[in-house]
Amino acid sequence: MAIATTESYAAMLDAAKAGEQVILVRLETSPEDIEGMYAAQGILTVRGGMTSHAAVVARGMGTCCVAGCGDIKLNEETKTFTASGKTFKEGDYISLDGSTGNVYGEALKTQAPSMTGDFATLMGWADEIRTLNVRTNADTPKDAAAAVNFGAEGIGLCRTEHMFFEEDRIPAIREMIVADNLEQRKKALAKLLPMQRSDFKGIYEAMEGRPVTVRLLDPPLHEFLPHEDEDIKELAKDMGISFDELKETVDSLKEMNPMLGHRGCRLGLITPAIYKMQAAAIFQAAAALVAEGKTIVPEVMIPLVGHENELKLMRELVVEAAKEVMEKTGHSFDYKVGTMIELPRACVTADQIAAHADFFSFGTNDLTQTTFGYSRDDAEGKFLLQYLQQKILPENPFAVLDRDGVGALVKIAAEKGRAAKPDLKLGICGEHGGDPSSIEFCHQAGLNYVSCSPFRVPIARLAAAQAALKTT
Amino acid sequence: MAIATTESYAAMLDAAKAGEQVILVRLETSPEDIEGMYAAQGILTVRGGMTSHAAVVARGMGTCCVAGCGDIKLNEETKTFTASGKTFKEGDYISLDGSTGNVYGEALKTQAPSMTGDFATLMGWADEIRTLNVRTNADTPKDAAAAVNFGAEGIGLCRTEHMFFEEDRIPAIREMIVADNLEQRKKALAKLLPMQRSDFKGIYEAMEGRPVTVRLLDPPLHEFLPHEDEDIKELAKDMGISFDELKETVDSLKEMNPMLGHRGCRLGLITPAIYKMQAAAIFQAAAALVAEGKTIVPEVMIPLVGHENELKLMRELVVEAAKEVMEKTGHSFDYKVGTMIELPRACVTADQIAAHADFFSFGTNDLTQTTFGYSRDDAEGKFLLQYLQQKILPENPFAVLDRDGVGALVKIAAEKGRAAKPDLKLGICGEHGGDPSSIEFCHQAGLNYVSCSPFRVPIARLAAAQAALKTT
Repeated sequence: MAIATTESYAAMLDAAKAGEQVILVRLETSPEDIEGMYAAQGILTVRGGMTSHAAVVARGMGTCCVAGCGDIKLNEETKTFTASGKTFKEGDYISLDGSTGNVYGEALKTQAPSMTGDFATLMGWADEIRTLNVRTNADTPKDAAAAVNFGAEGIGLCRTEHMFFEEDRIPAIREMIVADNLEQRKKALAKLLPMQRSDFKGIYEAMEGRPVTVRLLDPPLHEFLPHEDEDIKELAKDMGISFDELKETVDSLKEMNPMLGHRGCRLGLITPAIYKMQAAAIFQAAAALVAEGKTIVPEVMIPLVGHENELKLMRELVVEAAKEVMEKTGHSFDYKVGTMIELPRACVTADQIAAHADFFSFGTNDLTQTTFGYSRDDAEGKFLLQYLQQKILPENPFAVLDRDGVGALVKIAAEKGRAAKPDLKLGICGEHGGDPSSIEFCHQAGLNYVSCSPFRVPIARLAAAQAALKTT
Repeated sequence: MAIATTESYAAMLDAAKAGEQVILVRLETSPEDIEGMYAAQGILTVRGGMTSHAAVVARGMGTCCVAGCGDIKLNEETKTFTASGKTFKEGDYISLDGSTGNVYGEALKTQAPSMTGDFATLMGWADEIRTLNVRTNADTPKDAAAAVNFGAEGIGLCRTEHMFFEEDRIPAIREMIVADNLEQRKKALAKLLPMQRSDFKGIYEAMEGRPVTVRLLDPPLHEFLPHEDEDIKELAKDMGISFDELKETVDSLKEMNPMLGHRGCRLGLITPAIYKMQAAAIFQAAAALVAEGKTIVPEVMIPLVGHENELKLMRELVVEAAKEVMEKTGHSFDYKVGTMIELPRACVTADQIAAHADFFSFGTNDLTQTTFGYSRDDAEGKFLLQYLQQKILPENPFAVLDRDGVGALVKIAAEKGRAAKPDLKLGICGEHGGDPSSIEFCHQAGLNYVSCSPFRVPIARLAAAQAALKTT
């Protein structure tokens, strides 16, 4: 099924929801196509290449993509394209091979990869050689189970905010945001607590005793609220508050540069009730597993720490929550408290920060943004693609870890952190965790693990083995 | 004259323009008061302290401020306040002493500081001791002359964008931005060239042979365009283009995080015509001075370099422009090409960047933003003041240079830069250049000069001497 205009993404989403496998065909993609790209099983563009918007985004989502297929002539208005003399229209079937770039004019049978036969043997060899552990980034029991299937040895990044966006939870988080006082806020958070607890329990169970690193709330709160007056009006009605009140909250959360704004542990420090609820949910789920005779060692990760005092205070909050849960439930468990290292300041003061951390996980997405001073949301559309085309930059630093800059900071942090605390566990959980060149760097820098999206786990296992062979 | 509500800033601006000395009196200030704060000769707030919005902003502007004067009772609605039993209303006279925090209920005579008598003697002693040079940040001949009067030994930062904002120039820069093709763009830039040339000539003359560092265009282009539909409509009419066309340009320049977006040398690399015009103006002005028998060594500074290739290409562009001017005018002159160091990546790759630079100037405002991951526009209102109140941070890093984080990166850059090029000149041009603690750090880090706003030059001279004494 070929869809060629942004207007029809609603239809495309419906088709995808109905189980139809949809391929998005466009001249080129831009950020406003993201909805369609998510719904698509495959993406085909006429223009572009390795570093075009379509290729970069598809790579991140693990979606099959053929970018820059100049051999097809696309008419986005009539939603048709011609190739090799044949015309295809919306609803026709085509198939893509993302590895070769081949496009087939029919529905080919595809097969999901499975870890058997020669593939399993090769992976077994890789596992014998590699010294880097491979974890996964997973936010749901389903993703976690898939990753275990691919050989993931733990979760390196569980993003709790993804749980808040779900339809049945977002009302509670919105209630928390517009709360006038601590009591109202606690009431809203109390609604979220059992949901988060059950999320964590499901994820722990899927991981069968493997370590699970949970990151506390990271994005700015305005992301949970609508921004158009029409939507604000509707939500205000649903929430039983006035339009003006909600509008005022939305406006008060606006920021010039949200990437550098009130997010990460800054939320936890200014509004501790949020992190308290999350820590309680993490530990209550652990206690529930202990009650069932299972074991789990939750690792609580504080995002966006730039000064040791931030981690010191948030660690105290987490330790307090663990103590309370153990006292209330009578079940005890081990746990760790660590931090993302994703700001240059955290790298150069890693010795101070290590004093309060059991582990560091390098968030190389944000570290790349701050080290280069690039907003990922803006850079690609405005100058980054031209930088790559003109070879001003050798690689897209969001795809391949920039060793000279970002890598130098990672090394400084690893050295300073280990000097202060020799048994400090070090990992990486940015998207680079699934890129072979970046994995080689992580091996050389002496990290303990990489964490990547589930479908990249086998690639990471192999790349980790290749890195180990290369340096012996 | 005491003004107590934001609604009356228009009247206040008019009064200030008419030569009235206006004092702004508020419970506390917030970013929306900025217009009134600019117009005010002095600022008095009931709440706050050293690190409140009023104090921090006033310090940056060099405006006298008494913050946190809890002894006055202010009624913002009636625009009156009472103190020591006396009531003051809008239009009454008061005087402030920013050093002692005293508030006087009458118009006291004030005197502009002059460099004579004991003050001059003390400054003379300081100059004998200090090894750091003191330059100034100045964008106009008037500021430059004032700074020379205070003992500035050169200009460390001349921001060319300030020249573009002037009423008679902004039409040409807007024309350049909406240009459809290179020819139109060059035509618009050709209008700006003589204006920039005359700006530079005036500044060179005021500096009487002292070095002048000119930074090429830095802010994102959307700053030169209106953002409200009403204003866009009006401007489109003035420009003789359609509303839709202008609106499209405005929209295409929108960014999620402009601080990390298409600005600095990214503008020069994607649209070289802008930097070509600026370099030509800088050198044509130098040639004109040579023709009059004077000397000047312009220092061209490329902003926001993060990768050596950016500076390599921009240096080639500047060298080419100098060659052309020398050939056309028959006058030759020396010049330097250097870069701002304001991104963490520039710090850790300073050895590579130094290969293409005659000097580094640390832009510690932006370097603080990227190192901490703080948007200065957002941080103060959202969490920074609370961080200071709760002592999570010991100081406001935008006022006092953060030695452990930002300072560590400055030291890495200084060492790497000098290792690659021993005679590399190092300076600082962020606002920290006027802060005594930060100046002490610059002395210790082995920098050659600090650059600060004109009225802070004497403070910097003294602080530089104190730093020298402390370390001998």
